[in-house]
Amino acid sequence: MNTQKPHIIDGINELKQISEWKTMTCLTGMRPTGKLHLGHYVGALKNWIEMEKIPNIRNYFLIADYQALGDYLDDPEKIRQSVKDIVIDWLSVGLDPKKSCFIVQSYVPEFAELAFYLNMFATYSEVMRNPTLKDEIAKIEKRESNNGISIGFINYPVSQVADILLPRGEIVPVWEDQIPHIELARKIIDRVNKKTGTDFPLPKALLSDIPRLTGIDGKEKMSKSLWNAIMISDSLPEIRKKVQKMYTDPNKTSVESEWNVENHVVFMYLDIFYEDKEYIRNLKKRYTEGWPDSIGDGELKQILVATLDAFISPIREKRTYYEAHLEIIKEVIDSWATRFRTEAKELLLELRAKMKIADYGA
Amino acid sequence: MNTQKPHIIDGINELKQISEWKTMTCLTGMRPTGKLHLGHYVGALKNWIEMEKIPNIRNYFLIADYQALGDYLDDPEKIRQSVKDIVIDWLSVGLDPKKSCFIVQSYVPEFAELAFYLNMFATYSEVMRNPTLKDEIAKIEKRESNNGISIGFINYPVSQVADILLPRGEIVPVWEDQIPHIELARKIIDRVNKKTGTDFPLPKALLSDIPRLTGIDGKEKMSKSLWNAIMISDSLPEIRKKVQKMYTDPNKTSVESEWNVENHVVFMYLDIFYEDKEYIRNLKKRYTEGWPDSIGDGELKQILVATLDAFISPIREKRTYYEAHLEIIKEVIDSWATRFRTEAKELLLELRAKMKIADYGA
Repeated sequence: MNTQKPHIIDGINELKQISEWKTMTCLTGMRPTGKLHLGHYVGALKNWIEMEKIPNIRNYFLIADYQALGDYLDDPEKIRQSVKDIVIDWLSVGLDPKKSCFIVQSYVPEFAELAFYLNMFATYSEVMRNPTLKDEIAKIEKRESNNGISIGFINYPVSQVADILLPRGEIVPVWEDQIPHIELARKIIDRVNKKTGTDFPLPKALLSDIPRLTGIDGKEKMSKSLWNAIMISDSLPEIRKKVQKMYTDPNKTSVESEWNVENHVVFMYLDIFYEDKEYIRNLKKRYTEGWPDSIGDGELKQILVATLDAFISPIREKRTYYEAHLEIIKEVIDSWATRFRTEAKELLLELRAKMKIADYGA
Repeated sequence: MNTQKPHIIDGINELKQISEWKTMTCLTGMRPTGKLHLGHYVGALKNWIEMEKIPNIRNYFLIADYQALGDYLDDPEKIRQSVKDIVIDWLSVGLDPKKSCFIVQSYVPEFAELAFYLNMFATYSEVMRNPTLKDEIAKIEKRESNNGISIGFINYPVSQVADILLPRGEIVPVWEDQIPHIELARKIIDRVNKKTGTDFPLPKALLSDIPRLTGIDGKEKMSKSLWNAIMISDSLPEIRKKVQKMYTDPNKTSVESEWNVENHVVFMYLDIFYEDKEYIRNLKKRYTEGWPDSIGDGELKQILVATLDAFISPIREKRTYYEAHLEIIKEVIDSWATRFRTEAKELLLELRAKMKIADYGA
């Protein structure tokens, strides 16, 4: 445990140790921005699958669609489709709704109600200091009109605190730059506890040690909006086309240094997705040392296409199945919404009682 | 109808004309800041009683306690007591829960949910332009620390729009300085209608032609926090004590002008509360013309004490009854909360359907 920062858990191995003697609730999620890509898999889903295997961890996987709904008021159908796609992706990579709670935020209006109460405990100035919010506002203000910022957007750091608190989340997987969100959550929940006498858990950040996956351009992190993403639903021709476009070492005409292999995008992906690490070491040797057993980018790309297709095709197969059985998706969403709303209502009743807000009339 | 400003209805007589050919919903309310005083009666309750008599008007009387809860996080019991006191006051002055809907905001979490959705439609800049919000923020910022502004407070102009929309309010009684709130409500609800295809009414302001009642100091408008208020629950000794303290004309040693009578606080109250206007005209004559039938401040005050006590004592009597029968208060609050929540849920389902947010899981 990082004693300097008691609210940070340094990676999944530290979590495994802690959870040996304690049952814990983990809240993590995604925004519905469409089908998922390999970056989501490497940066999140792979870890979530690991988390599901830890016996004492209860996982809540959230699809945070409220903010997205606000951003796509003119095209809400897009968000609905995204939500479906994400649940299909989650099931297809092997996440298990029997073990974990899959929550679609907008199916649980208790999130909105809790955010409304938490707003009373959060100060305007501390919310406006949130670095992500500041960045986003700066971005929006650079545009022609800054009318674009909704009051809902200003509320989103507190809305995220509600996302964590409603399932009584104790662990939130984050990257380093998201730690201020956890710190804000702790501050607000601590204030609720002190002012009202509740005993809600202060969440800890589970720090990711996995770097974000670089896109096929070799420059930016993988993102659908940057057109540098391989989707976990891509077909073999799509995978092939994208791998063909991949950045490779532009100096590959003379003898190469190890350094160049390290930044070679095709190898970057092979390192992650090819199981037999010995084989990859050998490929790198052949690639850098050249003659007599040299291998070129063309062959490497063929190997990567086969590797990615081997990884993606079982996922794709399951995807096809779920797309033909959308009633399963609906059932997962609906039944979890019902079950989770029962828990959520209990938390709200507890908070309302402590705040001396009388019972609901109904 | 004010054709320049189609969103303004000029007083209750204009409303009576409009409502002859149209059923309309009126939303009005109070913040729970304790027992009510004569200023509340003159400025609001008297009109509400009138409104209840107009056949085609359906009235919703709201106790807006969410904001107050945020302001008194350390003393929530105070707000609960206030809510009870207000319902007792409303019943005691003759408002009729058989005719009108009495709503306690915090009993209806649908207000919070609706405000959360409306936040997506309201821009940060238009909310921050709201004059009341600007004034309040300026006041708070003058204090030692401006940490005092909660994010909930920033949300309150939109929260007020939710208060109007949830009962599908078409008419909102306001004073002139509150018109910007109605204009914001119209703007946001219009945006909801245009973006989602709902057909929610755009509220109109029912402009009050009654000046706000001046306090017993003769300077500021009546307000409990300025210690210049006569409560509608005051006992005879309390009324007497307060009337004794009343400002009277400091120049009353020589012959008086009519003007001085106009600004004489005791006459100000007699004008409002004494039924027989002829009798008051005569008193004024005796007071200003002096000899041979002169009357002094002492006698005037005795008349006012009797007048106010005659007005307040039946209210006080009913108050005593209701305080001994708090189960009636509870029943009014609870049964209306239940009934109103059914309506509220319908509106939310309608809005959610138009926003393509799927049905709740439960």
